[in-house]
Amino acid sequence: MYDLAIVGGGPSGLAAGLYGARAHLKTLVIEQGLPGGQMQNTLEIENYPGFKHILGPDLSEQMYQQALDLGVEWKTGTVTAIELEGNPKILTIGSETIEAKAVIIGTGAQPKYLNVPGEKELAGRGVSYCATCDGAFYADKDVFVIGGGDSAVEEGLFLTRHARTVTIIHRRDELRAQPILQERAFANPKIKFVWNTVVEKIEGDHKVTGVLTRNVKDDSTAVLNGDGVFIYIGFYPNTSFLAGSVILNKEGYIETAADMSTKVPGVFAAGDVRTTPLRQIVSAASDGAIAAMTAYQYIESL
Amino acid sequence: MYDLAIVGGGPSGLAAGLYGARAHLKTLVIEQGLPGGQMQNTLEIENYPGFKHILGPDLSEQMYQQALDLGVEWKTGTVTAIELEGNPKILTIGSETIEAKAVIIGTGAQPKYLNVPGEKELAGRGVSYCATCDGAFYADKDVFVIGGGDSAVEEGLFLTRHARTVTIIHRRDELRAQPILQERAFANPKIKFVWNTVVEKIEGDHKVTGVLTRNVKDDSTAVLNGDGVFIYIGFYPNTSFLAGSVILNKEGYIETAADMSTKVPGVFAAGDVRTTPLRQIVSAASDGAIAAMTAYQYIESL
Repeated sequence: MYDLAIVGGGPSGLAAGLYGARAHLKTLVIEQGLPGGQMQNTLEIENYPGFKHILGPDLSEQMYQQALDLGVEWKTGTVTAIELEGNPKILTIGSETIEAKAVIIGTGAQPKYLNVPGEKELAGRGVSYCATCDGAFYADKDVFVIGGGDSAVEEGLFLTRHARTVTIIHRRDELRAQPILQERAFANPKIKFVWNTVVEKIEGDHKVTGVLTRNVKDDSTAVLNGDGVFIYIGFYPNTSFLAGSVILNKEGYIETAADMSTKVPGVFAAGDVRTTPLRQIVSAASDGAIAAMTAYQYIESL
Repeated sequence: MYDLAIVGGGPSGLAAGLYGARAHLKTLVIEQGLPGGQMQNTLEIENYPGFKHILGPDLSEQMYQQALDLGVEWKTGTVTAIELEGNPKILTIGSETIEAKAVIIGTGAQPKYLNVPGEKELAGRGVSYCATCDGAFYADKDVFVIGGGDSAVEEGLFLTRHARTVTIIHRRDELRAQPILQERAFANPKIKFVWNTVVEKIEGDHKVTGVLTRNVKDDSTAVLNGDGVFIYIGFYPNTSFLAGSVILNKEGYIETAADMSTKVPGVFAAGDVRTTPLRQIVSAASDGAIAAMTAYQYIESL
């Protein structure tokens, strides 16, 4: 029986582990991949306060070792179901079950991929899903934004703070984004639009050099040159193992209070998987710390 | 005219500066002391995710340099008044005024001091105001908690996770803490109580060795030996320069939404100065990042 089981080993889960262990809770982190979550796939990190520059895998390793050194147990595996109600909570990991007094869910969220050649190969080398994270690397460069919703247009506007030009490529002939964002985008001289167009390939060997596009009306193709591709065609939380649970909202994100508690006693959430105003390493780590301390209070009250 | 003025240069202000500058906002941080806020007075930090061990002044310097390198401007001075309503916001710093489109307040909060000999001299060397921060340094040690309210008893209970004994010294003959905390404290075999007693001096040369106490009933004095003194006689936000403002609650803390916005458009708060479930470096830094990105959205909408 664990005091605290944490599902997901990204920055939220690792910070929760750190704070759980420091509160002397018997703490387990369960992660299906490598420690660090999305940080593992991030080449350069320059926006985590305290590190002017660090590689994603290095920051992952440092947070991981810090948690292990404090006594956090680590388990590689995929949680397929959790009995959230009642006490203890029961987690299913393959053929195994694990019991814990409290659970923190920090499984993150992930972008929808274009699934075109070059996308995976050039991820972190010109292909990005986060302008807030990576925009500053594109000072005076030419970048593409793929998509036409609120996120695409918002992040396109953000990118004009850095980039020389921002070309929004959209499969339809009008944006889905809210009118005020559209107005701002149309008024911004740095933003260009390519309508009725999809990206079929991302070009480049070691870094992005452009995109191969196809016009969906006339099937014509073109190669557009540029240095970065920001893909904003959707985002979804990693909560399929919680399908139907009362802690999810309509979009599948976990709703929490400011102390990271959910509707179900003893169940907490942290990081990108919850409804949150910012999806950054520092905010995920903070969520994890808060969730662990609230879980500690909960466990003490049992 | 600045885009963003940040009052306070602790972890919340420095992280806000980092994110403000990365959003290419013209950003100023105003701080009356050294960069880093309470971090400057923290000898050892082991609970900021990513750093297994770092000295407080070193983490302060790294966050400070990171912000400066991105173009954040730094000003040493004390903000004595802000015109929060209207646009721009006008900040008074001595005889000077500064204008900004948006303001983030990250002035922090501070403990009430005992004001006895040894307290200042031994701060960070056995004298602490935060069990969550420093408790882990007292594994199997004997510690004192000064106070009798919720915080004193809660943190005393937390300290039993680490320390061998926790002696709560209180000037009255009963606790003010809520009954459930009292019950837990009385039931905990590691916790002892010394009633009707005040601390007159903290003993020790380079680190705490004990406390000199005085019984307020019979004026008898005693020296009690121990390794740490956690002082919980009160905490207050650094908001006197905002006295009477609608953004403060009854206790003087700033109320914010999850995106760090206050009741007044263009005015944001971050870190210990706001009502928050956790007062840690990582949570202050996260608040700062969120506040800066929300401020960016606000400035874009002007």
